[in-house]
Amino acid sequence: MSYFRSNIIAMAGYSPGEQPARGKFIKLNTNENPYPCSAKVGTAIGRATKAGLQRYPDPSARAFRVQVCELLKKHVVGISPDWILCGNGSDDLLTIITRALVEPGTYLRHTNPSYILYDTLAEIQGCRCQVIDYQPDWSLDESFHAPDAALRLAILANPNSPSGTQIDPRRVLQIATALPCPLLVDEAYADFADSHCLGLVAENEKILVTRSLSKSYALAGLRFGYLVAQPQMIEQFSKVKDSYNCDALAIAGATAAIDDQAWLGRTRAAVLATRQRLTDALERLGFQCTPSQANFVWCRHPAKSAKELYQQLKQDGVLVRYLHYPHWQPGLRISVGTNEQIDALLTLFKRYELG
Amino acid sequence: MSYFRSNIIAMAGYSPGEQPARGKFIKLNTNENPYPCSAKVGTAIGRATKAGLQRYPDPSARAFRVQVCELLKKHVVGISPDWILCGNGSDDLLTIITRALVEPGTYLRHTNPSYILYDTLAEIQGCRCQVIDYQPDWSLDESFHAPDAALRLAILANPNSPSGTQIDPRRVLQIATALPCPLLVDEAYADFADSHCLGLVAENEKILVTRSLSKSYALAGLRFGYLVAQPQMIEQFSKVKDSYNCDALAIAGATAAIDDQAWLGRTRAAVLATRQRLTDALERLGFQCTPSQANFVWCRHPAKSAKELYQQLKQDGVLVRYLHYPHWQPGLRISVGTNEQIDALLTLFKRYELG
Repeated sequence: MSYFRSNIIAMAGYSPGEQPARGKFIKLNTNENPYPCSAKVGTAIGRATKAGLQRYPDPSARAFRVQVCELLKKHVVGISPDWILCGNGSDDLLTIITRALVEPGTYLRHTNPSYILYDTLAEIQGCRCQVIDYQPDWSLDESFHAPDAALRLAILANPNSPSGTQIDPRRVLQIATALPCPLLVDEAYADFADSHCLGLVAENEKILVTRSLSKSYALAGLRFGYLVAQPQMIEQFSKVKDSYNCDALAIAGATAAIDDQAWLGRTRAAVLATRQRLTDALERLGFQCTPSQANFVWCRHPAKSAKELYQQLKQDGVLVRYLHYPHWQPGLRISVGTNEQIDALLTLFKRYELG
Repeated sequence: MSYFRSNIIAMAGYSPGEQPARGKFIKLNTNENPYPCSAKVGTAIGRATKAGLQRYPDPSARAFRVQVCELLKKHVVGISPDWILCGNGSDDLLTIITRALVEPGTYLRHTNPSYILYDTLAEIQGCRCQVIDYQPDWSLDESFHAPDAALRLAILANPNSPSGTQIDPRRVLQIATALPCPLLVDEAYADFADSHCLGLVAENEKILVTRSLSKSYALAGLRFGYLVAQPQMIEQFSKVKDSYNCDALAIAGATAAIDDQAWLGRTRAAVLATRQRLTDALERLGFQCTPSQANFVWCRHPAKSAKELYQQLKQDGVLVRYLHYPHWQPGLRISVGTNEQIDALLTLFKRYELG
């Protein structure tokens, strides 16, 4: 007999992208920002360290919530700090939301392909997943918002990974209105996109939007994300979070990061320019690329297996993500690095026989 | 109809101790260490910040696990890094353990009085609690290890809060052997005690020991704790944790903290000396104090209500914890501060009419 819940024993657990402990790799596999974060972050962390770490942090991260409301008030009508819940990375928020909403006998609905973690979180809760395939043009048909008495949560990564595609906010509102349950819009990559769904939160309490500081603010190492939702929703989710889920340094660093919108603007512009260069160059090499609204490009080559390319690149010191989802051809998800990193990748591709 | 699981709607949520945003208080209410952490922690955090935060942290916090094994190998036969799971504070580990073990239809057993969070975690999982009262001498009778087919987890805070008392490790081993399920020994305060249960982990896979860096290492603001258990147990718990639950700064700071055992020795000695002074002085003022193995003292005064004393102290700028548990008389839990802070508290007590 095992001591563990049967669904824990049965599950494999989520495997994050490779983080090589040894060797010098160009890392284009986990969608990190290639640039260092705003200098204001380091200053804030230094100040918080100096102030002392012996006290518990503010359980509600109020400093951050006040600051982010200033930023969001032009998008979200009526927003105030009680519309925000902070998390130890947006993974923490995904965990909180699934724990609050789904359980055995209920369904969590998400898309294929998308973020594998949604399946893992459902497995931990002992609930089943309804997985809806994207259409070939990366749209979603009505099956994503079809009624189901046992459905408790739908999750839409928007922009999606690995495709980098985005569902238009007007369509997201239609989906949320039709759904019988909350719709979590995971906007981890939205700072790299042309639009976002923040404005919808005020229109429908079922719409929950999560944001991450990992990618656009170059703070994957700091672990900070936030949920935007109506206060009556935040109130329930707050019951599920660990009291002190965000540490004092993360709160200080994240607050400083969002205060430096000039840094975000510059970095975003650099990433988007390199994304375009990468896409153009890949297409000239014969790759089929999906137009991206994120900080990565999803591609495959008609003449060479994605798995072999991944392995060849790894041998040559470049890590990209090889991903294979049911009903979809395998492909490579290449994070947008610096221009120099992308040049190194393209040089390797040119050396391989791709044709 | 609500979108939330019925047990989430029904529960109140855990309220941590007061963290006043305004005003100057002497904080003796949340068992924080009154001294700043080792200077090595700040250096390590500075170095990690400078190295950049744009990359994800090591999901397994290997640097910390290697370092802590060096420290623990004299206590735990055969320990290696796969005996350790790191958490975003030990609350994160308590969450992981309850998610892996308990569910509706099962029981979690713990003691009264103890850490209220155990009830909250059971409520979130939708399982019931069996709450076993301590005996008047703070021992546990056989009902704590009585067989029950639906029992999946027993939790023993050792030293316990609010009592500061400790069950002897030999007795803990008896309890674990008799229990049909894992026994989590929450050793958040063990660095202030005369003994601990780390050595038992090698003797019985059911024994899980959690440690926190919040109190003894003065790092409540950093959020770092660890679980010591046999590798086959760690493997299952690992499936439940968020991939990147510990951030890069916390891993660096925690690793530096446990590397400075000289700091720990000095700080522990200071806290224990002040604990003795506090206890002696309280007893001279007529308080009944429970002998403490932790960094706080649990006391009540026969002539004055604990609630009134708490309120009077708060008005006078000193926060202590007023706690009232079923079947027990209410009391005050007073954290061991600096000598100056304790002097300020004692001066107030002398001014109040306690006779």
